[in-house]
Amino acid sequence: MSTMKALVYHGPEKISLDDVPMPKIIEPDDAIVKVTLSTICGTDIHIWHGGMPEVQPPRILGHEFCGEVVEVGPAVRNVKVGDRVAVSCVTQCGECFYCRRGSNYAHCTTGSWIFGYMIDGCQAEYVRVPHANLGCHKIPEGLTEDDVLLVGDILSTGYFGAENAEIEPGDTVAVMGSGPVGMCAMMAARLWGPARIIAVDMNQQRLDFAVKQGYADMALNSAEVNVPEAIRDLTDGRGADRTIEAVGVKGTFDLALEAVRPCGNVSFIGVFEQPQEIPMNKMWIKNIKISMGLVNANRIPELINLIQAGKINAKPLYTHRKPLNDLLEGYDVFGNKKDNVIKWLITPYER
Amino acid sequence: MSTMKALVYHGPEKISLDDVPMPKIIEPDDAIVKVTLSTICGTDIHIWHGGMPEVQPPRILGHEFCGEVVEVGPAVRNVKVGDRVAVSCVTQCGECFYCRRGSNYAHCTTGSWIFGYMIDGCQAEYVRVPHANLGCHKIPEGLTEDDVLLVGDILSTGYFGAENAEIEPGDTVAVMGSGPVGMCAMMAARLWGPARIIAVDMNQQRLDFAVKQGYADMALNSAEVNVPEAIRDLTDGRGADRTIEAVGVKGTFDLALEAVRPCGNVSFIGVFEQPQEIPMNKMWIKNIKISMGLVNANRIPELINLIQAGKINAKPLYTHRKPLNDLLEGYDVFGNKKDNVIKWLITPYER
Amino acid sequence: MSTMKALVYHGPEKISLDDVPMPKIIEPDDAIVKVTLSTICGTDIHIWHGGMPEVQPPRILGHEFCGEVVEVGPAVRNVKVGDRVAVSCVTQCGECFYCRRGSNYAHCTTGSWIFGYMIDGCQAEYVRVPHANLGCHKIPEGLTEDDVLLVGDILSTGYFGAENAEIEPGDTVAVMGSGPVGMCAMMAARLWGPARIIAVDMNQQRLDFAVKQGYADMALNSAEVNVPEAIRDLTDGRGADRTIEAVGVKGTFDLALEAVRPCGNVSFIGVFEQPQEIPMNKMWIKNIKISMGLVNANRIPELINLIQAGKINAKPLYTHRKPLNDLLEGYDVFGNKKDNVIKWLITPYER
Amino acid sequence: MSTMKALVYHGPEKISLDDVPMPKIIEPDDAIVKVTLSTICGTDIHIWHGGMPEVQPPRILGHEFCGEVVEVGPAVRNVKVGDRVAVSCVTQCGECFYCRRGSNYAHCTTGSWIFGYMIDGCQAEYVRVPHANLGCHKIPEGLTEDDVLLVGDILSTGYFGAENAEIEPGDTVAVMGSGPVGMCAMMAARLWGPARIIAVDMNQQRLDFAVKQGYADMALNSAEVNVPEAIRDLTDGRGADRTIEAVGVKGTFDLALEAVRPCGNVSFIGVFEQPQEIPMNKMWIKNIKISMGLVNANRIPELINLIQAGKINAKPLYTHRKPLNDLLEGYDVFGNKKDNVIKWLITPYER
Repeated sequence: MSTMKALVYHGPEKISLDDVPMPKIIEPDDAIVKVTLSTICGTDIHIWHGGMPEVQPPRILGHEFCGEVVEVGPAVRNVKVGDRVAVSCVTQCGECFYCRRGSNYAHCTTGSWIFGYMIDGCQAEYVRVPHANLGCHKIPEGLTEDDVLLVGDILSTGYFGAENAEIEPGDTVAVMGSGPVGMCAMMAARLWGPARIIAVDMNQQRLDFAVKQGYADMALNSAEVNVPEAIRDLTDGRGADRTIEAVGVKGTFDLALEAVRPCGNVSFIGVFEQPQEIPMNKMWIKNIKISMGLVNANRIPELINLIQAGKINAKPLYTHRKPLNDLLEGYDVFGNKKDNVIKWLITPYER
Repeated sequence: MSTMKALVYHGPEKISLDDVPMPKIIEPDDAIVKVTLSTICGTDIHIWHGGMPEVQPPRILGHEFCGEVVEVGPAVRNVKVGDRVAVSCVTQCGECFYCRRGSNYAHCTTGSWIFGYMIDGCQAEYVRVPHANLGCHKIPEGLTEDDVLLVGDILSTGYFGAENAEIEPGDTVAVMGSGPVGMCAMMAARLWGPARIIAVDMNQQRLDFAVKQGYADMALNSAEVNVPEAIRDLTDGRGADRTIEAVGVKGTFDLALEAVRPCGNVSFIGVFEQPQEIPMNKMWIKNIKISMGLVNANRIPELINLIQAGKINAKPLYTHRKPLNDLLEGYDVFGNKKDNVIKWLITPYER
Repeated sequence: MSTMKALVYHGPEKISLDDVPMPKIIEPDDAIVKVTLSTICGTDIHIWHGGMPEVQPPRILGHEFCGEVVEVGPAVRNVKVGDRVAVSCVTQCGECFYCRRGSNYAHCTTGSWIFGYMIDGCQAEYVRVPHANLGCHKIPEGLTEDDVLLVGDILSTGYFGAENAEIEPGDTVAVMGSGPVGMCAMMAARLWGPARIIAVDMNQQRLDFAVKQGYADMALNSAEVNVPEAIRDLTDGRGADRTIEAVGVKGTFDLALEAVRPCGNVSFIGVFEQPQEIPMNKMWIKNIKISMGLVNANRIPELINLIQAGKINAKPLYTHRKPLNDLLEGYDVFGNKKDNVIKWLITPYER
Repeated sequence: MSTMKALVYHGPEKISLDDVPMPKIIEPDDAIVKVTLSTICGTDIHIWHGGMPEVQPPRILGHEFCGEVVEVGPAVRNVKVGDRVAVSCVTQCGECFYCRRGSNYAHCTTGSWIFGYMIDGCQAEYVRVPHANLGCHKIPEGLTEDDVLLVGDILSTGYFGAENAEIEPGDTVAVMGSGPVGMCAMMAARLWGPARIIAVDMNQQRLDFAVKQGYADMALNSAEVNVPEAIRDLTDGRGADRTIEAVGVKGTFDLALEAVRPCGNVSFIGVFEQPQEIPMNKMWIKNIKISMGLVNANRIPELINLIQAGKINAKPLYTHRKPLNDLLEGYDVFGNKKDNVIKWLITPYER
C-alpha cells in the first residue's frame, strides 16, 4: 500500500479527506506510527478557519494521538516495531539550548509543536514521528489507548499550566474556563494539594460536569456572579492564590489578573488571538508572577504513572468517537460546539 | 484560683500529677491559654525516661494542644481573649536570622521547640504561650479541637518531612515507619501528587491500618520482604523517588538510603539517639539529597485549610481519650505501646 | 524640644519645610529614630506632583534613610537606644499571611510601604518606625551611614528585581533603564553570576557611567540601536536570558518583552502610571515568566554583609549632598534631573 | 594509520604507553575526536592503584579533554568534522529517565561517567565519543583549548558542588579542600554572590594560592585552627551558611558537617573510599540538607560563556604540561603530589 487516507488542510475553510502518499523515514531517529486513536484539538479548528496563516497547505492536520510503531530509523533506541505508544504533540531533540535547560521542549530548535502545523499530523492512517526517542512513550501493559490518549497534548498542557502556577498545598486555585483544557488543568492542579479548586465558566453545564467529576471543588458562573469578588469572599478578602487561564480571550484574561491575590501567580495556557491591555498602573505593586507558553510535554511518563495508579482519569471528557471516515462531521460538531461535545475521538479508517 | 493541675517531670522515670502555680504573662507578646485538648507525644516519653538530660526538673511536659485564650500581653495582635486556638509546638519570633530566612522557625533564636522542654508545657490546665502572635492559630468556625489537634506538632512534622522530600507528581514515595508520625508524613506526602505511597513497617497491623485509611497505597512488611529490592521491582529497577524516615533507628536509616533511587531524596524526621554509619564509599556517586531536622511548623494555617476542605483527616489516629486525671496511665499505655494505642488524647482535668 | 523641621506635602505641587510636632511611640514595637542621612526617591517626586492622590496632606515625605535609635517601645527587642540603624522602607510585622509566606513583606497587612506615604516619613529630624524589630537594621562597626544608606529602598529594589529575574550563572541580562534603580538592579544582578549585564538607556552619560563603574559589562543606547536585535546578535539569535525593567513607561515595557528570549524571565520594577498593551497573540507561545511588584526588602542584612565584604558599592551614585535646610532645592534638582543628579543625599538640619 | 599511542591500564599499578588500534564509529551518534589537550585527574590515580576494581583491563584511561572532530556518525547533528570541541566527561543520551528529569546526566542509563572507566578514554591520540550531540561542545572562536580544558570535568564538578550547596547572595561559604577540585568549587561558588568564600586545607601553600588568585576571600589552615569555631566567630556564632567538601576523607567529612550552621547545606563532591559516621543523634535537629554525587556536567555551555566573558579563569591551576610521550612521569608526579603540581596537562604525542 503506498497511499493512505488523511484529513488535509487546503487553505482557510478548506479541509477534505484525501488519499495521500504514505509517510517515510527521513532522519535516523524518525519512526513511522500507525495511528490507532486520535482527536480533534482546538488549534485544529483555528487552522481550519485560517487563523494560523503560517500553515502551508496541503497539510495533514492533527497532533494528539496514540498508535503502533511500524518502522524505525537506525538511531531509534527507545521504542521498537510493534510497540503501542502515546506520542507527544511537542517534538524534542533533547540536545539543543532549550532541551538542555530544564526541559524547555516547547522551544526545541529542531522540534517544538510541528505536527499538523509545520509537518504532517496524525489525522491520518500513518504519521512520521521525528525525534522518536523522546516523542514516543510506550503504553504500559494493562492500559489502553483510551486511558492515555490525552497525555500527548491537553493533559500535558493542563499539567504545564498547573506547574507554572506554582500551587502550594492548601491553596485556593481558580481555573478560568471549564472546557477540555481547563478541566485538564484542574486535574493537574489537584496534584499539588490545593484546598480548593474553583471552576469558572459561563457554561453552567460544563461547570456542573467539572464539579460532578471531582475535577473542581466548586464552580462560579461568570455570567452570574462577580468572580473576583466571590473569590475574595472565600479567601479572607485576598483573592485566589493562583489563577489559571484556559481560554484565550479578554474576559478570562482580565478575570485571571483580577481574581489573583497579591504575591500570587497567574498561569496562562489559553491561546490568544489578540493583544491584551494589562493595567500595569495597578499591577506593578501587586507582586504577582505571570507565566504563559506552549506546553513542554516533559512529564508524559509521570502522567502515565498517575493514570496507571488511578490518580488521574480524563476519560469522562470523551463525548464522541467516530472513525476517520467521519472526520468532516467531527470538525463541524467540535468546531461549532454542537451536541455538548467535549472531546471528539477519531478511530482508524474503516474500509 | 492560683494553682492548677499539671503533669510534672521530676527527673528520669519520675513524673507526677501535681498542684502547681498558674502561669503568668511575662513578655508583652505572651498569651495564657486554657488547654482544652492535648496529647502525649513520643518525645514526652524520651524525656520521661531521662533520654533528654537537658530538661531541668521540675518541668511541666507536653507540646501538642488546642485551647482557649484567657489572657494576652499588650503586644498580642493576632488573637484575643475567648479565641479557640491550635498552638504550634515551635515557638517563633518572626524576626530573627532564622525566622526571616524562609521560615526556619525550628531554629528561632528566642523560640524553637521549648514547650514541655525548656519552658513549661501543655499537659496542664493552663499554659503560657510566648510569641503568641505566631504561635496561636484561630480554629475556624465549624471545626472542632479534634479536627485540628495535630497541626501543632505531628501533622506539621509529617508535612515538613514530605516537603523536604521534594516529591513531584507521579513519584513513588516510601515511608519508613507507620506510626503516628509516619502516617502524618503519608497524609502530607499525598499533597504533592505521588503516584504511589508505600508504607513500610514491621507491625502488620499498623500497615493494614495505613492502607485501609487511604494514607498509603500499599504496604511492605520489612520483617518479611527485602524492602529495597521490592521497591526496585516496582520501579523499573530504580528505587523509590523519595524516601521518608520516621522512626530514628539503624534499620530504617539504612532502608531509607538503600531504597531511594539515584538522584532521589531522603527525608529524615525520626529522632535518632545514636550516630549512624553512612556508606559514603557507595553513596558519593548516587546524587541523592538528604534532609533532616526539627519541624518548622510554618504551614499550620494551610494545614487547617486542608482539614477544613476535607483533604486531610488525622482523626482515625485517635485511639484513646481520657482526662488529665488519668495521664499517668496514658504514659504507661502510650510509652509501652499497649492496647494498640496510636494517639492518646488528654481532655481537661475533671474536678 | 517638642517640634522639629520636616518636609511636608500639602497637596499637589505644594511642599514646604515646616515646624511640626516630634513623633511619639504609639505601638509597643515602635521606635523613634533620629534621621542622620536620607535621600529623595523617585516616588517622592510622584507624590509631589500629585501623582498619588491617596496621600493625605499634610504628610511628611521620605522613606530611604539611616539614623540613630532614640526611644523604643516595650516590645522592641532587636535594637536599643543609641544603635545606628539602616531602616527598611517597607514596614513588616513578620506574622501576617504575607510575612509568613516566603517573606512577602511588600504586602504585610499592617505594614508594606507606608513611610512618607500613609504615615509620616524620614525627610525630617525624627521619625517613628513601626514594627521596629524587623524595620531597623543595626549598622555594623566599621561601616558608615554612607555605606549602607540605600539598602532600605533602592538597593533592595534592585535586589528584588534581580531575584525575580531568576538569573542563572552564565546568563545575559539586559537592564532597561540606567538610572539609580536600574544601576542598583545591575549591582544586584551581578550576584547571580551572569556572563554579561547590558545597560540600556537613551542617556549616553548614564550608560557610560554604568559601564565605567563596572555595574554593566556593556551598554546599548536605545535611541541609536534596535535593542532587541542587538541583543539577539549577541546571543545566537535568541535574546536576553532575563530582562529587568526599571523605568515604568511604554518604551521600556515593550523593550523588556521584545528583548527576552523564549523561556526567559522579565522582571518589572519600574513604577507604571499607565496600563500597557501586552501582545498576548505573540507572547502566549513564548514560555516567558513576568514578575512585578513592590520591593520586599527582606534581604537587608545580606546586602549589608555584601557591602561590608566589598562586593557591592553604591556610593558612586551619590552626586549631591546637602542638609535638610536645602531640601526644596533638592526636589527641584532631583525632580527635574538637573545637574546630572543621580542621588540627592540629605544630611541633618543645621540650626 | 591504524594504530595510535595510548596510556593503557593493565591492572593495579600497571600502566604503560602502548600502540593500540584506532577507535571506530560504533553507534550512529558517535564521533571520533583527535585529542589536542587532556589532563590527569584524581580518579585516574585511583584506578591506577587498583581502587576501582570494576575497571576491566586493558583500558585506555583519561576523561578530561579537548580535541578536534575527525569523523561523525550519521545521527550526529551538533558538531561536524573540523570542529574544535571541549568534551564532557559524562556521557549523556538526553532521552532516558534521568536525562529527562532536570538534567541528571550523571545517571544517564546509557552513559554517565564511562570514559577511561567503562570505555576507552582520552589519554590517547584519538577517542570515540558516544552520544556526541550532547557530549561535544564547540569551542567558540577566540578561545583556546587551554581556556576551556577543565569544563569537561573538574570545573563542572566544582559547579555541581556549588549549585548543590544552594548558595544565596551574602552567604559565607567554606570549601573543605583547596586542591584543584576545591578551587574549581570556589570559582563556581563565586557565581552565586557569597559575601565570603573560605578556603580550608592543611597545605598552607595551596591556601595562599587560592587567596592570591582570588578564588577564596580568606583561608583557614585546619592543621592550625579549630575550623568550625573559627567560622562561628566570623558568623555571629552560627557557622557557615554552606560548606562544600572536596576531598573525600573523614577529616573533611566531619569538618563539613560541624562547620555548617543550622538550616544550612553541606555539599559533598569528594570521592570517598570509606563509610563515614554521621552523628544523627546531634544532626537530626539541625535542619541541614546534604547532597552528594557525580558531576552532571549539564552547564558546560554556560561555563564556556563565563570563561569567554572573563568571569572564570582556571588557567592558573595548570602547573605542568608535557606531551603524551611523558605521561608515565605525569602519573608519578601528579599521583604522588610532587613538585607542587596542581594540574598536569597532556599535549599530543610527539613522533
